[in-house]
Amino acid sequence: MRLDYLTPITPEGLRRAGIGAPWRFGMADRVRFSELDALGHVNNTAYLRWFENLRLPYLAARHVTDYGPDSPKLVLKRTSCDYMAEMFRGMDYIVTGRTRAFRTTSFTMEFAVFLPNQDGPAKQMAAGEAILVLLNRAGDGRFPIPPAGCHAFVTEDGAVAERA
Amino acid sequence: MRLDYLTPITPEGLRRAGIGAPWRFGMADRVRFSELDALGHVNNTAYLRWFENLRLPYLAARHVTDYGPDSPKLVLKRTSCDYMAEMFRGMDYIVTGRTRAFRTTSFTMEFAVFLPNQDGPAKQMAAGEAILVLLNRAGDGRFPIPPAGCHAFVTEDGAVAERA
Amino acid sequence: MRLDYLTPITPEGLRRAGIGAPWRFGMADRVRFSELDALGHVNNTAYLRWFENLRLPYLAARHVTDYGPDSPKLVLKRTSCDYMAEMFRGMDYIVTGRTRAFRTTSFTMEFAVFLPNQDGPAKQMAAGEAILVLLNRAGDGRFPIPPAGCHAFVTEDGAVAERA
Amino acid sequence: MRLDYLTPITPEGLRRAGIGAPWRFGMADRVRFSELDALGHVNNTAYLRWFENLRLPYLAARHVTDYGPDSPKLVLKRTSCDYMAEMFRGMDYIVTGRTRAFRTTSFTMEFAVFLPNQDGPAKQMAAGEAILVLLNRAGDGRFPIPPAGCHAFVTEDGAVAERA
Repeated sequence: MRLDYLTPITPEGLRRAGIGAPWRFGMADRVRFSELDALGHVNNTAYLRWFENLRLPYLAARHVTDYGPDSPKLVLKRTSCDYMAEMFRGMDYIVTGRTRAFRTTSFTMEFAVFLPNQDGPAKQMAAGEAILVLLNRAGDGRFPIPPAGCHAFVTEDGAVAERA
Repeated sequence: MRLDYLTPITPEGLRRAGIGAPWRFGMADRVRFSELDALGHVNNTAYLRWFENLRLPYLAARHVTDYGPDSPKLVLKRTSCDYMAEMFRGMDYIVTGRTRAFRTTSFTMEFAVFLPNQDGPAKQMAAGEAILVLLNRAGDGRFPIPPAGCHAFVTEDGAVAERA
Repeated sequence: MRLDYLTPITPEGLRRAGIGAPWRFGMADRVRFSELDALGHVNNTAYLRWFENLRLPYLAARHVTDYGPDSPKLVLKRTSCDYMAEMFRGMDYIVTGRTRAFRTTSFTMEFAVFLPNQDGPAKQMAAGEAILVLLNRAGDGRFPIPPAGCHAFVTEDGAVAERA
Repeated sequence: MRLDYLTPITPEGLRRAGIGAPWRFGMADRVRFSELDALGHVNNTAYLRWFENLRLPYLAARHVTDYGPDSPKLVLKRTSCDYMAEMFRGMDYIVTGRTRAFRTTSFTMEFAVFLPNQDGPAKQMAAGEAILVLLNRAGDGRFPIPPAGCHAFVTEDGAVAERA
């Protein structure tokens, strides 16, 4: 199927590629030669870079940060990835991301990697998670998620507000 | 301007992006977070990966290899890169490649990185070169560039056939 | 303290660097410039490469594979990493690894990253896990952990044999 | 032979490893799994990272920068690398660097990669070059190489002072 690479995909676009709920934010890309390792398949670390790469436009779209001089510093506390099927050079994929839960200054994201499919359900190749914390750029303290970010987490992603 | 990322661009498409002769093969992409280094700009090694990434579809398009089991092994003998301007996160760029000269079993490619511009000449950010040799996959000997590859080098890129 | 980089460290050597039980296999290394990202600290993916890099000599030392032509193919099913403190350029660290549990054809490893300390407990900077599966190199089936590997997991690491 | 990895090697140490003049600064390291590509050999970009990694302690040793807040920003203008022999996982190597020539605010470095050999000449696997420019960290202007740096370039490396 025809893909618009490197461009945020709408929920409708994800559905057309065979990717169902709860995913509402994704981006298409293609496996590069430099992401393969000596076993000839995509190296385990490449998936974490894909999640990182999606996270940046996602967090702007959800009003968590504009990456400006007064924006919070985003720090990872934990990452994980489940590798569900080997991936190879030239494969087109869509990586999706959403926020599952949030507290005052931290939140938990989920990610997935799919092979797009216009004729049925997309095949899922990997699943990931990341816990992020917002810090003040200048000092040591934590930085609260902006209200617009919390609102978008709930209304766009159906995220759960947890007690801090 | 609207870009079709990760898709070979025709000579006409390059011209519309402000990229003139002799370039006739290119691909658009975007700087990723993982390509930046601690100085906040694109690391010097990232450009070589862009050239590598372009080389793979380019050499299939020029009939040098189909990457099949009987295809030659492609080995780099030399690379170089001139860094003309710093590049930063999120920049859209077009990387172009062509073969300048070839012998029986080796050839010299040129590369460039441009910021596309629909209203005038694209700004060139980097220039690169690579010398490649074809080897037999199974043994030690060299592998001659297939006649269709030599033909495409000349007719598509205006490459010069040098004495071996 | 004086470190022998890139060389497996004995349990006694780990104790001298302030790293206690259950760790019995480790290797010292130093943060490289290319492992930093635009935030100026070690990127989250670098830790997974450190674990991968340790895994290779560790699995030979535990008699799981000699990486020869008849050796099993090692495939990751899952990785995770907890980031406990930021790391910066030039830091000397010791990465440790062990197997916590194993079944017939799969096993779970634990990893840690420490700043060595000869005057007290080493500071832990990260913790990781990985689930690996052994596959036949030639075909599709699974490959059982060799008996010498199971024996070493138990006697060297205190690993638990789980029901398949 | 026994190597002290990741530690600057004296000229005498280089000679004992079979590396002759003009090399007077080097560091031993070992090929990592993550530096291999899908062809099973060290990827072309890895060599540039090795040169970069050597450059950092080298420029401190030559009094060009202490990497402090008032130190110059180091920018690459050009890199090149000749690949003389394939390299593989686990290989121990020594990367060497020196300054060949300098002007007021720029200088040209040479690099080499050797397999150390205590019984004869080391085998050279790669050769590289880099042109670097010093910039003011705060502004746009150039930053002159400190006199102590010029002195060390001449006395330690035999570098040639060129007219600006």
